[in-house]
Amino acid sequence: MSEAPIRIALVGMGKIARDQHLPAIAGNPQLVLAATMSPHSPGVDGVAAFKSMEALLAAGDTFDAVALCSPPQVRYGLAAAALAAGKHVFLEKPPGATLSEVAVLKEKAEAAGVTLFASWHSRYAAGVEPARAWLADKRIDRAHIIWREDVRVWHPGQAWIWEAGGLGVFDPGINALSIVTRILPRRIMLEAATLSFPANREAPIAADLKLRDTDGAPVTFDLDWRQTGPQSWDIAVETNAGTLTLSQGGAVLEVDGHIHRDEDREYAGLYQQFEALIRAGVSDADVTPLELVSDVFLTGRRHTVETFED
Amino acid sequence: MSEAPIRIALVGMGKIARDQHLPAIAGNPQLVLAATMSPHSPGVDGVAAFKSMEALLAAGDTFDAVALCSPPQVRYGLAAAALAAGKHVFLEKPPGATLSEVAVLKEKAEAAGVTLFASWHSRYAAGVEPARAWLADKRIDRAHIIWREDVRVWHPGQAWIWEAGGLGVFDPGINALSIVTRILPRRIMLEAATLSFPANREAPIAADLKLRDTDGAPVTFDLDWRQTGPQSWDIAVETNAGTLTLSQGGAVLEVDGHIHRDEDREYAGLYQQFEALIRAGVSDADVTPLELVSDVFLTGRRHTVETFED
Repeated sequence: MSEAPIRIALVGMGKIARDQHLPAIAGNPQLVLAATMSPHSPGVDGVAAFKSMEALLAAGDTFDAVALCSPPQVRYGLAAAALAAGKHVFLEKPPGATLSEVAVLKEKAEAAGVTLFASWHSRYAAGVEPARAWLADKRIDRAHIIWREDVRVWHPGQAWIWEAGGLGVFDPGINALSIVTRILPRRIMLEAATLSFPANREAPIAADLKLRDTDGAPVTFDLDWRQTGPQSWDIAVETNAGTLTLSQGGAVLEVDGHIHRDEDREYAGLYQQFEALIRAGVSDADVTPLELVSDVFLTGRRHTVETFED
Repeated sequence: MSEAPIRIALVGMGKIARDQHLPAIAGNPQLVLAATMSPHSPGVDGVAAFKSMEALLAAGDTFDAVALCSPPQVRYGLAAAALAAGKHVFLEKPPGATLSEVAVLKEKAEAAGVTLFASWHSRYAAGVEPARAWLADKRIDRAHIIWREDVRVWHPGQAWIWEAGGLGVFDPGINALSIVTRILPRRIMLEAATLSFPANREAPIAADLKLRDTDGAPVTFDLDWRQTGPQSWDIAVETNAGTLTLSQGGAVLEVDGHIHRDEDREYAGLYQQFEALIRAGVSDADVTPLELVSDVFLTGRRHTVETFED
């Protein structure tokens, strides 16, 4: 196979772009970083840097695809412009600020004949596919998700995450939902949700969800952004053949008394998938995790809790 | 055509069932009311009445289809049971408490080989289809929706409408969205929303939305449940060929200096469509209006306003 590498323009040069996207692109010989775009942040040495999507798109046939790491509130306009210019688009999670936006992007990608990839990085954690395979033929009795982390450690000073539409604790929580919707053999639906909003913020800092799969098996989900000390990103699934646990955000799988652990290849996996989708000429834009979060905001009961300052 | 009439079981015998569903079924010779189900309300003289879905379904092959008028918070379980029993299902609007529920119902209907109809009665108002036809080849410059009514008149004592998941002012507002998403030639997306919640309620009493179609035309939506005196259910669409207005909830169309008005046949139209879907063996479950409302709750800014008492 000697196809030319796919030329990527990386847009939104914040923490996730630098921590994860740059190394993943650099580590994949089928990809090459062709440009960066960020209104305020610096680019990468030796790579063409642009300050706006208009300027980037004016660079024409110097890149094939855009990877969008900008906050979800501005992602739609950037994605729509890139699709209209015939570029493939990789969307960081969540794929948009609203479900309608993503529905429109799917239509635009199809009309333009390019690939749209709504990425869910946690689905590429080492334990996820083995967990899915093991659970496929089991009777699911119940599942428990605990996602408790310290927002000051993981999202320092990220004001957008606390604004309306910024999802709050569901920014990490949607990662858990992306895993659970992948590993469980049946769909899950929300039954009840309680959301805790700091008095000075427009997004929740904690939540407590009760869900059920379509056979009635209960799934509980405990999210909290106020966890100091040890952090928890754990999923336990009780079945007729014993309990499966995924911990450390999907990295560590324990089942049948065995522990499976592998190196972190989440973003490497995402970019392999993006390349495969482009080569195959297809899209992958599953919105199920965002749909569940929308269901939470639509129907959840809200409580006000103490103010939160970074 | 001499096919046997479709036998309908009407479930949830509240205001909408009595005001609209019973006359519409009675007025359609292709349909017959075979049963009613309501835990607390009385049935209809001369028609088998049941107190639970289990009891109704135990009546077996005495009916073909279920029309569900129960509040959205309990609709899923009733619909799933009916589909599992091989019955066609007509869902009052909104089609479910959450988008995930409706997605699952679609899958269940397909698996069972029966019809699922997510009804939007306002789409059957007299002016809607002529408006759609007229707008199809126009350039849309902007649109304005005003939906202001007196909740004490239209929803007296309906506690469920004020509970989390009850939608509040979006219970009528979703009717406007069902019309706008039908008549405009392009999809609309939410840009910004402000929601007003009474201090003692879990659902909004007013809202102010800014949307845009996929070509950028602005659409504003002003909803208020505190309107006494004249009520407003008006849509105005400004185009390159003049302004189209739909008033009285879609019943009256004014365009090109002409006023089109016809008798109210919304529920007659819904039941004609339900019958046609069943005869054709297909489903019709568009969730676009509920998706937009979910987008509002996901991203809208919330204000607390004065308490509301019925």
